[in-house]
Amino acid sequence: MRLLIKNIRTLAGIVPADTLMLRGGEMNNSAGQIDDAWLLAEDGVIVGFGPMATLPEVEADEVVDADGRVVFPAFCDSHSHIVYAGSREGEFRDKIAGMTYQEVAARGGGILNSADRLHEASEEELYEAALPRAWRMIRSGAATLEINSGYGLTTEDELKMLRVVRRLQENLPATVKATFLGAHAVGRAFAGRQSDYVDHVCRDMIPAVAEQGVAEFVDVFCDEGFFTPEQTAQILECGGRYGLRAKIHANELASSGGVQVGIRYGALSVDHLEEANEQDVRDLAASATIPTVLPGASFFSNLPFAPARRMIEAGLPVAIASDCNPGSSPSGNMTFLWSLACIKMRLTPEEALSALTINGAAALGLSGDRGAISVGRRADVVISKPVPSLAYIPYSFGEDLVESVIIGGTKV
Amino acid sequence: MRLLIKNIRTLAGIVPADTLMLRGGEMNNSAGQIDDAWLLAEDGVIVGFGPMATLPEVEADEVVDADGRVVFPAFCDSHSHIVYAGSREGEFRDKIAGMTYQEVAARGGGILNSADRLHEASEEELYEAALPRAWRMIRSGAATLEINSGYGLTTEDELKMLRVVRRLQENLPATVKATFLGAHAVGRAFAGRQSDYVDHVCRDMIPAVAEQGVAEFVDVFCDEGFFTPEQTAQILECGGRYGLRAKIHANELASSGGVQVGIRYGALSVDHLEEANEQDVRDLAASATIPTVLPGASFFSNLPFAPARRMIEAGLPVAIASDCNPGSSPSGNMTFLWSLACIKMRLTPEEALSALTINGAAALGLSGDRGAISVGRRADVVISKPVPSLAYIPYSFGEDLVESVIIGGTKV
Repeated sequence: MRLLIKNIRTLAGIVPADTLMLRGGEMNNSAGQIDDAWLLAEDGVIVGFGPMATLPEVEADEVVDADGRVVFPAFCDSHSHIVYAGSREGEFRDKIAGMTYQEVAARGGGILNSADRLHEASEEELYEAALPRAWRMIRSGAATLEINSGYGLTTEDELKMLRVVRRLQENLPATVKATFLGAHAVGRAFAGRQSDYVDHVCRDMIPAVAEQGVAEFVDVFCDEGFFTPEQTAQILECGGRYGLRAKIHANELASSGGVQVGIRYGALSVDHLEEANEQDVRDLAASATIPTVLPGASFFSNLPFAPARRMIEAGLPVAIASDCNPGSSPSGNMTFLWSLACIKMRLTPEEALSALTINGAAALGLSGDRGAISVGRRADVVISKPVPSLAYIPYSFGEDLVESVIIGGTKV
Repeated sequence: MRLLIKNIRTLAGIVPADTLMLRGGEMNNSAGQIDDAWLLAEDGVIVGFGPMATLPEVEADEVVDADGRVVFPAFCDSHSHIVYAGSREGEFRDKIAGMTYQEVAARGGGILNSADRLHEASEEELYEAALPRAWRMIRSGAATLEINSGYGLTTEDELKMLRVVRRLQENLPATVKATFLGAHAVGRAFAGRQSDYVDHVCRDMIPAVAEQGVAEFVDVFCDEGFFTPEQTAQILECGGRYGLRAKIHANELASSGGVQVGIRYGALSVDHLEEANEQDVRDLAASATIPTVLPGASFFSNLPFAPARRMIEAGLPVAIASDCNPGSSPSGNMTFLWSLACIKMRLTPEEALSALTINGAAALGLSGDRGAISVGRRADVVISKPVPSLAYIPYSFGEDLVESVIIGGTKV
């Protein structure tokens, strides 16, 4: 199966074949572009590209004329929570009315209430609800997406969530990665006994998750008011023994040691970082851990934006993910994140594209495999609607400029 | 021609038939809703609505089953600048890079450069470029839209822009209103001679615009560094003599007397207001002038958001408009504005809907005619995609939740 895309206005996100991830500020800008280009995929893999003047004679099963359109690597969304029961727009109203977190929770908001609702939902209901959310993300340009558990908070319900993620893996054209986030909050049965809950996560949940093979990563909400660095270390250490690689939520609410514990346990990424300080940035720069920032959560929850500009200047390969979830970031629109990164974090359109693609792939352990235009990588690409330039896409915030999404060389 | 919409999950934006505009904080909340409703339109006008239990026996030419969908009045965008030549994403890059306004202008940005490009474009080219922009706004739910001139800055080019607006009026299903904004900036030929330019606007442009009947409103960019309140008064007074009603840009950059001069000349609306202070709010509350806020410009240009919450508390009928333009707000997505109003200005979903509909209509002198569900009003309504509630629409920022737009009783 051969797919040829020709007359591409701009082919963006080109990196040399041996690029693993874009480490360093310079590298974030170094993804190349070719105007008036072609791209050839064979059996789901990019096998060639170049300026139209170099188009070889080739028989293709499908030829797409991308006249006036931009082609770029499909997005790799390395952080989402799209398996849940019930949206939380009631809580949105409560927050507009100025209620505190406690008041919102008392009226049915917050993670624990999501857990109650998930408990009542069947696996089938959860799957039926998550499927259109995943499809919306795919239509907005994502070909790879990670999904956290963490609205279960009991062994049974966490496993139910992760089985839903597995069904999504089996039924979607996108690559889906599963993360076990039992330590998202303390389950109701353990109220007031946080360390007992952490023991329960380690003793009961992680072995069950590992035995059933339903998650690849282990995550902890390591932040002020949630889990401590010590509890996080306990969970990551245990997860590691069971073959689950660390990826953690850190520094959303405070710079409370999350970055450092993540680095210590070889976390693939530390995610959120709205409150990351200069020491956190320096420690990240001396590590192999990827900083993942979530501008949708900052936008919707009126938090500070993570210092992504500063991180890039410090040589860090920043990844951007959606954090799509019903409480703090109820959107999975990837091109809107591109706009937020440029408008609110002052990333250039190209830096933001690298963050949403090659660096997102690296944050999922997929470095070298996707997220860039390079011979040998998966042919996961987006074809825009007719636009005058690449920068026009994030510039036109709120407009839907994705025309088609190609995953593994096939239009979805 | 009769259209029946039935099984509407929630019919929102209902006001009594004699409501002219939603004046007052209480009024902003008073638009009613009916769950499980029907709506009947005849010859483009709403002739009835109510709960499904009251659905009368009626022969309709078209029946829409809106099962699981929300229906609300179509948006009235009372402030845009969608006739222009060339997008300005290059300038977007320059701003990300931290350039000053002067540096941006030197590299081809700003109003004067838009004027240069418009000068070179033919009327046909301008029309062809503006048409898809208008259609994008219509598809996002707008049935009424205002378009400013102001990228001409010569009599000839201002008239060219306004003829393009007239062609849009003639060829779009939406209602299009034209505003003459000759005093958007000082035309290049008058550099350093601002008061001569103001005289030129009054002596030459306004009479020509009035004679050709191509605009209904007169506008001035009354702000620090642009036109003074005195110059604004001169232009509004002259426009008034030629039958052009005032609608002005004010207090985007400073509280510099724009609100007061607008009120003094009976402006239908004063628009922007990012820097409106307490005195401005009090003066507006004692006037018949509508405050129009433009959250898209605040979002994209990183300006403060106008104090819409405070205005509503002061009893003002706040209108929200897109300001869609290539420099400071390159988006015409109306549901995204709804999200911004709730997330960034803390308006409730219902207050924001009133601002985007009935109050926007009033800001265009169309009070009583549209922008609400009411017997006798134009049947301009939006049918959402399946959603659990009205609030879900602004909550799901960046998602496209408009399924169809009905203008004058006909699906477009």
